[in-house]
Amino acid sequence: MGACSQSARPMRDLPLALTMGDPAGIGPEITAGAWNALREEGPVFAWLGDPGCLPSSLPVREIETIEQAASVFRKALPVLPLALPASVRAGEPDSANSHTVIDSIARAVGLALAGAAGGVVTNPISKAVLRRAGFPHPGHTEFLAELCLVPGREIMMLASPMLRVVPVTIHVSLRDALDRLDEEMIVEAGRTTALALQRDFGIASPRLAVAGLNPHAGEGGMMGREEIEMIIPAITRLKAEGIDVYGPLPPDTMFTDAARAKYDAALCMYHDQALIPIKTLDMANGVNVTLGLPVVRTSPDHGTAFDIAGKGIAESSSLVAALRLAGILSRNRQKYTEGFLV
Amino acid sequence: MGACSQSARPMRDLPLALTMGDPAGIGPEITAGAWNALREEGPVFAWLGDPGCLPSSLPVREIETIEQAASVFRKALPVLPLALPASVRAGEPDSANSHTVIDSIARAVGLALAGAAGGVVTNPISKAVLRRAGFPHPGHTEFLAELCLVPGREIMMLASPMLRVVPVTIHVSLRDALDRLDEEMIVEAGRTTALALQRDFGIASPRLAVAGLNPHAGEGGMMGREEIEMIIPAITRLKAEGIDVYGPLPPDTMFTDAARAKYDAALCMYHDQALIPIKTLDMANGVNVTLGLPVVRTSPDHGTAFDIAGKGIAESSSLVAALRLAGILSRNRQKYTEGFLV
Repeated sequence: MGACSQSARPMRDLPLALTMGDPAGIGPEITAGAWNALREEGPVFAWLGDPGCLPSSLPVREIETIEQAASVFRKALPVLPLALPASVRAGEPDSANSHTVIDSIARAVGLALAGAAGGVVTNPISKAVLRRAGFPHPGHTEFLAELCLVPGREIMMLASPMLRVVPVTIHVSLRDALDRLDEEMIVEAGRTTALALQRDFGIASPRLAVAGLNPHAGEGGMMGREEIEMIIPAITRLKAEGIDVYGPLPPDTMFTDAARAKYDAALCMYHDQALIPIKTLDMANGVNVTLGLPVVRTSPDHGTAFDIAGKGIAESSSLVAALRLAGILSRNRQKYTEGFLV
Repeated sequence: MGACSQSARPMRDLPLALTMGDPAGIGPEITAGAWNALREEGPVFAWLGDPGCLPSSLPVREIETIEQAASVFRKALPVLPLALPASVRAGEPDSANSHTVIDSIARAVGLALAGAAGGVVTNPISKAVLRRAGFPHPGHTEFLAELCLVPGREIMMLASPMLRVVPVTIHVSLRDALDRLDEEMIVEAGRTTALALQRDFGIASPRLAVAGLNPHAGEGGMMGREEIEMIIPAITRLKAEGIDVYGPLPPDTMFTDAARAKYDAALCMYHDQALIPIKTLDMANGVNVTLGLPVVRTSPDHGTAFDIAGKGIAESSSLVAALRLAGILSRNRQKYTEGFLV
């Protein structure tokens, strides 16, 4: 690239856009907890929601544009206000507020697509509540992909300090997962993961481990043939694209301390093959990262928890981890993109 | 039971019978390592095999009956000799020796059934090698159940200091596991596990957790109906039999520290649902325990490891854990049985 004044300019850290989530869940209180945890060191974020549902003890500052977030963040939670039509009772979700819950997501994505926000961090929503209000999407992630005009390209990663996993099939029954899994899905997930590890996680030469589907990875076809018929061909194709990938590994031994040291992310064939090891190793610090989008998106790895909402006992650790990781991913992606621009 | 001289008599700890396993695998060297680790504190065991394949540095004493094991154990490994017909080269298994490998298992089971050995601990065998010699059984465990005249009653448990798991389906492809799983198998596994926890593990009121099959345990039928159609009915039947059992639990969150504190064993629906968490938590100390047999049986949680055999690098930790656990199970079972006899 040569000596170039542009590449040496200090990067600005864009504020993150944090959605409201279901206001009757734990979103408002963990948002307050996350602001308290991050107000000194950042990353800076603005919350898009109705300030009336936040804990009354929390200092709040309404802002007009997300650019103002940085200047108020140390003293108060910056809020881009959205008014809820119905009053909020903790633990009692109301579909009358769903339109505003959805609007918060759409606006956060809009800010990120426009380059005003460094990324989107989402508080938990309830699919059941939104569905009653006519929300047609199977979940948060699919809706985000539609808003970004890349439907079907979204790939879910769970990341913690100990392990990163990417389930190739997700929220379907185990039988459906077996019926849907194919070579193409594995290749797509592998490509998207390798790019994300380079661009967003800042790993120059990422290494992917691929799980087998069956016990002992099928033991040469003795216990299932999916490894031979789709997983090995997918690995061969990924290698041909220059991706550093190996497997299929016996699923039960690939998450030990020694095995995890050899890869940057594990490609898993179904939901629990990925989520059992990451949650068993580190329940509190798991972050859900959506790969394959034109914007950075993370979320805490838990739901609305209506049963404990408003009781002041919800842990904000996963949201804090989600905000911290979004800050890192956003900075890395900006650096990566500028590397290509100069 | 009242005052009774018999119930106060000191229990004799019966010696354990340790099989040879494949002599070309790591069995001989981990046997030596286990004797070194346990010679001071026990449990006492005798090895049934050809002394010629043991490391030459190991002190060995041939004995004629297993009763003699205790008197020699501190000074030398007690061996009930069985002659191999073919010479042994580490890492190069030979089906010509299979008959003796099988004989070692049969004799160990015979000693335990006769009440001369406190239990059977098995060194790893190679199914592929034995199959070439005409061994018709799918594996070690099934063969043991046949020798004990209870074919099909065997239930596999993996136990470590952090977790006990019982997979209801085992060494079949994931698709076959889904096809075979039914309510009856879950009930059988639950019954056998509850009895073993009481009788062999010495837990007066054991608590069983039952995993769901699907992500989020099916989320009320939204992602699979096996929970509704077979797992919940099985739990209802087990409860009706007086067993303390609960579930179905979302598989990904049931192995966290907090969740594990609530149960003594987890009933899992397929191989990797059980083996991923236990191996991820504690690879070195997992022990395979066969429940449902009239004899105590444990084994280390690894294979013959032909690739490293004879190099002096094999870890004997899992065999040591298997012998220790067999000693505990044997003593508990004896106590339990005597409680019924007096």
